[in-house]
Amino acid sequence: MSSIPGRVAILGSGLIGRAWAIAFARAGWTCALWDPQPDAPAQALAEVDRLLGDLAEGGLLRGQRPAEVRGRMEVVGSLAEALRDAAWAQESSPERIEVKLDLWREIDAAAGDETILASSSSAIVPSRFTESLAARQRCLVAHPINPPYLIPAVELVPAPWTAPETMARAAEVMRAIGQAPIVMRKEIDAFVMNRMQGALLEEAFRLVADGVCSVEDVDTGIRDGLALRWSFMGPFETIDLNAPGGVADYVRRYQGIYERLFPQMQRRVDWAGEVLASVEGQRRQRLSEDKLADRQRWRDRRLMALLRHKARAAREIG
Amino acid sequence: MSSIPGRVAILGSGLIGRAWAIAFARAGWTCALWDPQPDAPAQALAEVDRLLGDLAEGGLLRGQRPAEVRGRMEVVGSLAEALRDAAWAQESSPERIEVKLDLWREIDAAAGDETILASSSSAIVPSRFTESLAARQRCLVAHPINPPYLIPAVELVPAPWTAPETMARAAEVMRAIGQAPIVMRKEIDAFVMNRMQGALLEEAFRLVADGVCSVEDVDTGIRDGLALRWSFMGPFETIDLNAPGGVADYVRRYQGIYERLFPQMQRRVDWAGEVLASVEGQRRQRLSEDKLADRQRWRDRRLMALLRHKARAAREIG
Repeated sequence: MSSIPGRVAILGSGLIGRAWAIAFARAGWTCALWDPQPDAPAQALAEVDRLLGDLAEGGLLRGQRPAEVRGRMEVVGSLAEALRDAAWAQESSPERIEVKLDLWREIDAAAGDETILASSSSAIVPSRFTESLAARQRCLVAHPINPPYLIPAVELVPAPWTAPETMARAAEVMRAIGQAPIVMRKEIDAFVMNRMQGALLEEAFRLVADGVCSVEDVDTGIRDGLALRWSFMGPFETIDLNAPGGVADYVRRYQGIYERLFPQMQRRVDWAGEVLASVEGQRRQRLSEDKLADRQRWRDRRLMALLRHKARAAREIG
Repeated sequence: MSSIPGRVAILGSGLIGRAWAIAFARAGWTCALWDPQPDAPAQALAEVDRLLGDLAEGGLLRGQRPAEVRGRMEVVGSLAEALRDAAWAQESSPERIEVKLDLWREIDAAAGDETILASSSSAIVPSRFTESLAARQRCLVAHPINPPYLIPAVELVPAPWTAPETMARAAEVMRAIGQAPIVMRKEIDAFVMNRMQGALLEEAFRLVADGVCSVEDVDTGIRDGLALRWSFMGPFETIDLNAPGGVADYVRRYQGIYERLFPQMQRRVDWAGEVLASVEGQRRQRLSEDKLADRQRWRDRRLMALLRHKARAAREIG
């Protein structure tokens, strides 16, 4: 068994790949960056330098200087070189099945016998590109919410042939680098987080489409309402604490309220239909298109501040 | 038009009523507490004293001493006395339609001509208990997530006859006391927040019922994933910033992922069915029943710390 921290092969150095490199290198791992486009890793590292500066400023490099973390990353010229002695490989290629199939055949041929082989795939379940591989027992999807160096949750998705030890080892590695693994027991379309996001967004689009409230009202209800407790407890612990006798008591008391709603929620809303002009119009009134990039930087600063707050609150309050 | 801050009639002094008294009094309003059970307000004020101590310690009394805030509350002996010169009345009686119908007839008879008449009802839409009232144009539901002195979001729900000026004035008052109003344009079962919570919980129960992941995995995905950004942006702003061209671009790119899910989400899960033993068992393994009350206090401390963090982050980052 390889040691932790060990070596990780970063296969694909785009937005997701370079974010993984930061998450691993920050935790002491040596990262070998490879990309089918030979000049991509160098570009990625330029962006990594900028991001590491932001993270250092945000207090999120665990006391390390950017140069220390950066010093653990190297660009390599071939897939085989990237995979050499790797305890973990993280593939982050475009979300197209033909790309995945080709690349995963190459990974399978070049990988050592103990390497955990993970894909960042968000929309393609692992069985679709690992079935015929010799190493299929060591293959899984490790899907982050981007960027993983800011957002801890990562979905670990097994194919039907992924070994239990692979899942256990994958969860161990993810925890070791500071992520919060969701260890799924079987693959399912859109995994766990996008399913919950989809359910909530569908209701949000329906409320706006039906003229019940505005886009901003929906955001207010989550931002200044439900997501406050969710952001440090999650929805099950929230309802567990919302009735004197815990979650079973909550379901007894309140399922009736929700049950009436579900038939009304069966009606689909086409997000790209008539409602989209309204949603887009309301958003652009609050934030013009030329300010989107600025607001994304604001979001990342707020996210970093929230993470520092959560770490401090966990220390001081529990 | 009455001035802000003015006088508020707190009608019903249980869990929700006394929480409203704190929210109003903290913002400088004079609160007249009345309850059909004559000894209830005195008991409520004993609890208020404890809560004000916690809030002062948590830095959430806007620099005021508990005694200053407490000094704005008085117990009155009749509904009419509570309503005298009130700019706002907040009714928080049990969620039973026959209770609401009786009490609202009394409120209607005793209230002045300019008082905004609000109910804390969470499950009964306002048209069901205000239709026959003389003051029905000034009636609405103002539904908090409990407790409103910690959670800003409040749903303002009009009956078909609620005047637009009533809604505008109600939103103004709520903002003045520091709440974040959701100004609904029409009434709908379960309002806005419980609908979104219900949609998300239904998917969460289904994931556990189908053996896809554990209760804790669901909480991880929200607590260490989705709700981080939701807690300061809401879901619409989140997706608006998750594609280079904003929300319309997001829908173009990603609706396909979600569309495949919706047919799978049509299948109901009975939360009180087989899945409940599993959910309850997993929760009690993490937190035994005798520790629920302690954990509720932990939750409120974490919530107060989060609110201080959000206020500071808004000042420093925007």
